[in-house]
Amino acid sequence: MIPRYSRPEMVNIWSPETKFRIWFEIEAHACDAQADLGVIPKANAEAVWKAQDVEFDVARIDEIEAVTKHDVIAFLTHLAEIIGNDEARFVHQGMTSSDVLDTTFNVQLARAADILIADVEGLLAALKRRALEHKDTVRIGRSHGIHAEPTTMGLTFARFYAEMDRNLARLRTARDEIATGAISGAVGTFANIDPAVEEHVCAKMGLTPEPISTQVIPRDRHAAFFATLGVVASSVENIATEIRHMQRTEVLEAEEFFSKGQKGSSAMPHKRNPVLTENLTGLARLVRGMVIPALENVALWHERDISHSSVERNIGPDATVTLDFALSRLTGVIDKLVVYPETMLANMNKFRGLVMSQRVLLALTQAGVSREDAYRLVQRNAMKVWEQGKDFKEELLGDDEVRAALSEQEIEEKFDLGYHTKHVDTIFARVFGA
Amino acid sequence: MIPRYSRPEMVNIWSPETKFRIWFEIEAHACDAQADLGVIPKANAEAVWKAQDVEFDVARIDEIEAVTKHDVIAFLTHLAEIIGNDEARFVHQGMTSSDVLDTTFNVQLARAADILIADVEGLLAALKRRALEHKDTVRIGRSHGIHAEPTTMGLTFARFYAEMDRNLARLRTARDEIATGAISGAVGTFANIDPAVEEHVCAKMGLTPEPISTQVIPRDRHAAFFATLGVVASSVENIATEIRHMQRTEVLEAEEFFSKGQKGSSAMPHKRNPVLTENLTGLARLVRGMVIPALENVALWHERDISHSSVERNIGPDATVTLDFALSRLTGVIDKLVVYPETMLANMNKFRGLVMSQRVLLALTQAGVSREDAYRLVQRNAMKVWEQGKDFKEELLGDDEVRAALSEQEIEEKFDLGYHTKHVDTIFARVFGA
Amino acid sequence: MIPRYSRPEMVNIWSPETKFRIWFEIEAHACDAQADLGVIPKANAEAVWKAQDVEFDVARIDEIEAVTKHDVIAFLTHLAEIIGNDEARFVHQGMTSSDVLDTTFNVQLARAADILIADVEGLLAALKRRALEHKDTVRIGRSHGIHAEPTTMGLTFARFYAEMDRNLARLRTARDEIATGAISGAVGTFANIDPAVEEHVCAKMGLTPEPISTQVIPRDRHAAFFATLGVVASSVENIATEIRHMQRTEVLEAEEFFSKGQKGSSAMPHKRNPVLTENLTGLARLVRGMVIPALENVALWHERDISHSSVERNIGPDATVTLDFALSRLTGVIDKLVVYPETMLANMNKFRGLVMSQRVLLALTQAGVSREDAYRLVQRNAMKVWEQGKDFKEELLGDDEVRAALSEQEIEEKFDLGYHTKHVDTIFARVFGA
Amino acid sequence: MIPRYSRPEMVNIWSPETKFRIWFEIEAHACDAQADLGVIPKANAEAVWKAQDVEFDVARIDEIEAVTKHDVIAFLTHLAEIIGNDEARFVHQGMTSSDVLDTTFNVQLARAADILIADVEGLLAALKRRALEHKDTVRIGRSHGIHAEPTTMGLTFARFYAEMDRNLARLRTARDEIATGAISGAVGTFANIDPAVEEHVCAKMGLTPEPISTQVIPRDRHAAFFATLGVVASSVENIATEIRHMQRTEVLEAEEFFSKGQKGSSAMPHKRNPVLTENLTGLARLVRGMVIPALENVALWHERDISHSSVERNIGPDATVTLDFALSRLTGVIDKLVVYPETMLANMNKFRGLVMSQRVLLALTQAGVSREDAYRLVQRNAMKVWEQGKDFKEELLGDDEVRAALSEQEIEEKFDLGYHTKHVDTIFARVFGA
Repeated sequence: MIPRYSRPEMVNIWSPETKFRIWFEIEAHACDAQADLGVIPKANAEAVWKAQDVEFDVARIDEIEAVTKHDVIAFLTHLAEIIGNDEARFVHQGMTSSDVLDTTFNVQLARAADILIADVEGLLAALKRRALEHKDTVRIGRSHGIHAEPTTMGLTFARFYAEMDRNLARLRTARDEIATGAISGAVGTFANIDPAVEEHVCAKMGLTPEPISTQVIPRDRHAAFFATLGVVASSVENIATEIRHMQRTEVLEAEEFFSKGQKGSSAMPHKRNPVLTENLTGLARLVRGMVIPALENVALWHERDISHSSVERNIGPDATVTLDFALSRLTGVIDKLVVYPETMLANMNKFRGLVMSQRVLLALTQAGVSREDAYRLVQRNAMKVWEQGKDFKEELLGDDEVRAALSEQEIEEKFDLGYHTKHVDTIFARVFGA
Repeated sequence: MIPRYSRPEMVNIWSPETKFRIWFEIEAHACDAQADLGVIPKANAEAVWKAQDVEFDVARIDEIEAVTKHDVIAFLTHLAEIIGNDEARFVHQGMTSSDVLDTTFNVQLARAADILIADVEGLLAALKRRALEHKDTVRIGRSHGIHAEPTTMGLTFARFYAEMDRNLARLRTARDEIATGAISGAVGTFANIDPAVEEHVCAKMGLTPEPISTQVIPRDRHAAFFATLGVVASSVENIATEIRHMQRTEVLEAEEFFSKGQKGSSAMPHKRNPVLTENLTGLARLVRGMVIPALENVALWHERDISHSSVERNIGPDATVTLDFALSRLTGVIDKLVVYPETMLANMNKFRGLVMSQRVLLALTQAGVSREDAYRLVQRNAMKVWEQGKDFKEELLGDDEVRAALSEQEIEEKFDLGYHTKHVDTIFARVFGA
Repeated sequence: MIPRYSRPEMVNIWSPETKFRIWFEIEAHACDAQADLGVIPKANAEAVWKAQDVEFDVARIDEIEAVTKHDVIAFLTHLAEIIGNDEARFVHQGMTSSDVLDTTFNVQLARAADILIADVEGLLAALKRRALEHKDTVRIGRSHGIHAEPTTMGLTFARFYAEMDRNLARLRTARDEIATGAISGAVGTFANIDPAVEEHVCAKMGLTPEPISTQVIPRDRHAAFFATLGVVASSVENIATEIRHMQRTEVLEAEEFFSKGQKGSSAMPHKRNPVLTENLTGLARLVRGMVIPALENVALWHERDISHSSVERNIGPDATVTLDFALSRLTGVIDKLVVYPETMLANMNKFRGLVMSQRVLLALTQAGVSREDAYRLVQRNAMKVWEQGKDFKEELLGDDEVRAALSEQEIEEKFDLGYHTKHVDTIFARVFGA
Repeated sequence: MIPRYSRPEMVNIWSPETKFRIWFEIEAHACDAQADLGVIPKANAEAVWKAQDVEFDVARIDEIEAVTKHDVIAFLTHLAEIIGNDEARFVHQGMTSSDVLDTTFNVQLARAADILIADVEGLLAALKRRALEHKDTVRIGRSHGIHAEPTTMGLTFARFYAEMDRNLARLRTARDEIATGAISGAVGTFANIDPAVEEHVCAKMGLTPEPISTQVIPRDRHAAFFATLGVVASSVENIATEIRHMQRTEVLEAEEFFSKGQKGSSAMPHKRNPVLTENLTGLARLVRGMVIPALENVALWHERDISHSSVERNIGPDATVTLDFALSRLTGVIDKLVVYPETMLANMNKFRGLVMSQRVLLALTQAGVSREDAYRLVQRNAMKVWEQGKDFKEELLGDDEVRAALSEQEIEEKFDLGYHTKHVDTIFARVFGA
């Protein structure tokens, strides 16, 4: 996570200020629950809330931690400085540090998921708008980078929409999975604290109580979370790759928006490089690289070891901030993508009519020619186009064996673009609803 | 995937025989749909079913493929050999190879998921049985590998149950996501084939039609599928790691079942090594290693490139066969795990009473001692146990400053194990239902 | 590893036959050394060699292992069946299974490395031949997929040569690192066997004695080995990606060799798809996916746990067989790649002269125009080419502000291709030697 | 990379200040070379050095970049502000941004490698010291976490030494591989700049000229570099895992140094947790997770795309800073590790004599008992120790069938620890030299 690839809203989730604020809320709500249970005095629970509007002094907490080498104790010491040692006496009672740390981490991840979900919703809106705009913009479909049959630019946007819509569902599932909290004590037995405290704190923090925890919330939840981010990042790469291909000099069917003041290369002023989508490709690699460490974090020793912590201190912010930035950047790219329908047509016609060979093959078969023969006939004429630059339709019209099976009109029909786009509405209805 | 770590049911899903059978079914159902639409003659559609009970000759198909270098054409040629060239004339009409290949792959993955789901259900049954059996078997909970507070072996099994239950839900989601089919033609436009064919084939094969495909079904689905297997594998490692720790000589709280005939090491006959759970740790690494290739497969070029294929030909069988084997092996390990409750008690008492220090700390605080002082008092006595092998309770009873705050009876109470297990029923109810 | 992507020579390294043969050699050499030390009778050591030309019965060994559940014991039992129980009495004396297994694995990896090294040498020869052939075949260089400045196809081959030459060095280092053996006993102390046995066996097997082992050879060696394969595989992907780009319809500067009998797509006979290089891209992903499991294998517990074994039983063969196949396939692709110099020229001239803008910019600066102004002048004329299809040179010749700085001849000079290729010989000398 | 896991020296390598300083040096040296070639005026080259002692204004450069959206142009603009527009006119002439950026990145990586190399040297010194200190400290060796045969703590330190010594060699190779520079222009042809400039700049910056580059230095170098860091990190995890095992309550053969003021858990004051080595385990996961992104960076499109950049902006600092911190922390852990030889002896004797079973087995075989019978005899007595807590030696002495083969003295001999340590000096000589 570096500023260049970060957005403030997501970065803020991971600031010390936010963290301490969540710690405070958990401790304060826990005190309330303890007071309700009669475990600690009501007055002490109430006193904690005196710190509600106080900004915690991060530097001071760091200073204390430098001595105690324990972050939660440092925070509690600072809290006592604010609300008074006597008033603070019951804060954290029966709790273990992980109760606070783990519940906080999940609050942060759930909030991060909310932003990512909103990001994808924004991206979906852009993709839908562009899909409708270019529903009928004919373009050659390619397999293996080779011209295949016509499709439309709208279908390209629509399939990215469908993919991102699946990612939206995955992110929502991931968010639900991670939005749990635990206040269950040193090994998860609630020996020193009633389960009611956990229930109260979770309810207040928007979490579900973890059904069974140890000292920590089980890390399969986090693994599933970061794996989901890895899938979403790979979809970002998928869309980015398409645009990079479209923008390459020989294709040039689309370009990332190019603002007037922007210089391309320092040396080649004519160049408009797809740097945003190339960048997205790299960001996808970064997010993907965080999946394995998250999976390796699952197997903690016994009721916990702290090996996961350094991983999460990094990938928690890094994966969410990077993916947020990537989704936002991608939305901008889609939104402002400059599409060139004329070039699309010109590219499609590069091998005059050859992309219609599949139709001709089919027509020959339907006219009673054997599959083998039909294949041979199509191949024979196709090779003339490929090697000698002939026009496919004209070659077919002049091929006696072909004409024995198909009339001039039947051959002409095969080169009608409408044939390829006739089900676009059906597909759009599937993707966007009727 | 090697025989040593494979089970036949899962291996069969990936056999050439199964593959060709699914290809056949897709082609035959597609012919039916085409006949219903009036695109091909009913008689030809019906003729295809002549091959329904014929075993396909895998060697013959390979032979043809060696010439054509195209697997689907090879199969269709063989099919024509069975049902007659004339009858076979309309088979595959309007379809592209990927329609068959991709739909088949998803049928295989969905079936594999069914087995994995059944595996996890079997594992859950074993975990639940052992959890109930050892609900009250007291055992020391450990954080950082260090004794913390008492818990029970039942809680250990119960948390693995809860984790695997989440994995069950994840696998079901993954199965639903992957159970789609596509018969949409060379670039997904249905130019040469009506969407009704896709609908019919999918219905017959137990799949959902892919809302929008290109030449292929989008690979974010597969990425999510294999990422899920990676999460499940990491949970397998988690459970395996716990058992490995329990079996180590100094701990010896449990052992993998040791059959009479089995030799341990060739050199050290007394050794009973946790080789099954060590093996599971390795298998988890293998499955995890397949997640990234699956994620890298998402970004195909334009309407498809075939880079994903070699990856999937490997990880399709490898990940599912390996995870199936691992889950099955783990179920056996859990089922027959030899648990030693006496050793658990002996281990817990290794540092006489020290694990109760948290309770004493709390009691001191509740008795009005400041957090700082309470900590100091507990630490002072704990260090005597740690360094001089004293008994914690006796030290506390003899510490005037402690006794000023706590009576003998109050101190005695703190060493009652029931204190730690009082919420086990609550947790079990959360995990297994009331 | 599946037959489709395997070559027999590498597969044979991993056959049970090869494995048992190596086991036998290690045991027999160890007996010789033990006899030399006077630990066992000479006659018994000599007797072992009776099995030298006997083919081991893999099925029989499997049968024994099914009972003993221990592979080395099974093999030794079978060996005794061949040479006689009495004669076999001292075989394996003082050794532990891992002495045999680990040393064998490294023999296999070293042999696999030899094949991979030969593969890369073959690839280098092909790359060098094609580099020399196309040393002066001018082609546009591209950054970001956008035309930049001219280069030559020979330089493209040459840079792949240089990259693969580095990989050759890396493979040699990896081979040296992995070619160690250990006969050091149950925990590596040589308690039951003299270090002289290890020295003798290693010398005979072409290995270096591992300076310090435990029960196993340290796994950082294997991690480094598989990481190296991952780097080589990524270079394979690099070359494959270039060819895939060159073959795409709009670029078509080269094609994979297309044999006469080969059918492309079943539906689109005109298509010649870069399926080999797409396949190589996928194979690279596979090999790369095995790097992390190998790295995770390093941290074994104490003097060994067996978690690494299942990983290595898979990635040992899989990574080496897959990379061998990939290198061999790539060599074939390079060797027979059909290069189209005319298309290269045509592509370069797509934006008439625009790729020379860098030179013009430089010339303007050298003529005393400020960097800012020069940039503005070049950009102004470049945009006319870009947007209106004008010829860059003519626009420059007609731009008064440009002409104030540069004469007609000076402008003409800037469009000379020789300017760009003048250092090709220098670079070739660097890469291939003078 | 977060401050908590960072050391200033390594962080400084990645500061904007350092980066701009390297940029400046490259540009200034390039000007010198250009002046020597007569391409630009000597006076202008000399003028550039006016900025040598000026601190660049990072905020100002960022401000310019916000407008130009190009970092190198922003820097050059700022440089011109310092040395004068006129004087700066020839700076960067003939170069492309990547010449500066890529060469700079490699300077940073080479410097980072220097620190890592020094780190490993420091770690080696600590390991050697502790190895010599505990050369004869007997300790049970364990396979599968189960007691095997005696070894010494010195051998444990020695094997970590040997492993880290291999890592030292790997890091040196990685450093050599990455210490290259390229000043070869937009597509690597030296069209606009003489190779002599590259040679001069590289010589001055301590680099080797890249034999053939494109717009960028080939990324297989970086892949190999980061893969090496992944291997080193895995070795860190290996050592950390050993210490974590040693510190667990039931083993307690060593502890991380525990400073007086340090609090363990907030709730359990007796706990001394191996938090440093657990942390190292997590840091290893982080570094390992960066290997795959680095491998994915190899396959850039044509002469370059910029997808690698965002990856490297992150993993460049993150991997080197994290590994530097980890190595340094590990050195401290080793240096101050509290070793408990008495506990080692106590642990070894947990199963009275059972660890000597291998010796007894061997002795029986040597005394003429068949392998099968010897195995049975040892197993029979071993099981009594295992199940009934008997003493192994005494059982053997009382077993008639054993005594028929071995005398009392022969049995006694088998329990001599010196037998196991007799080759420690040999191994030490191999590892540390004679």
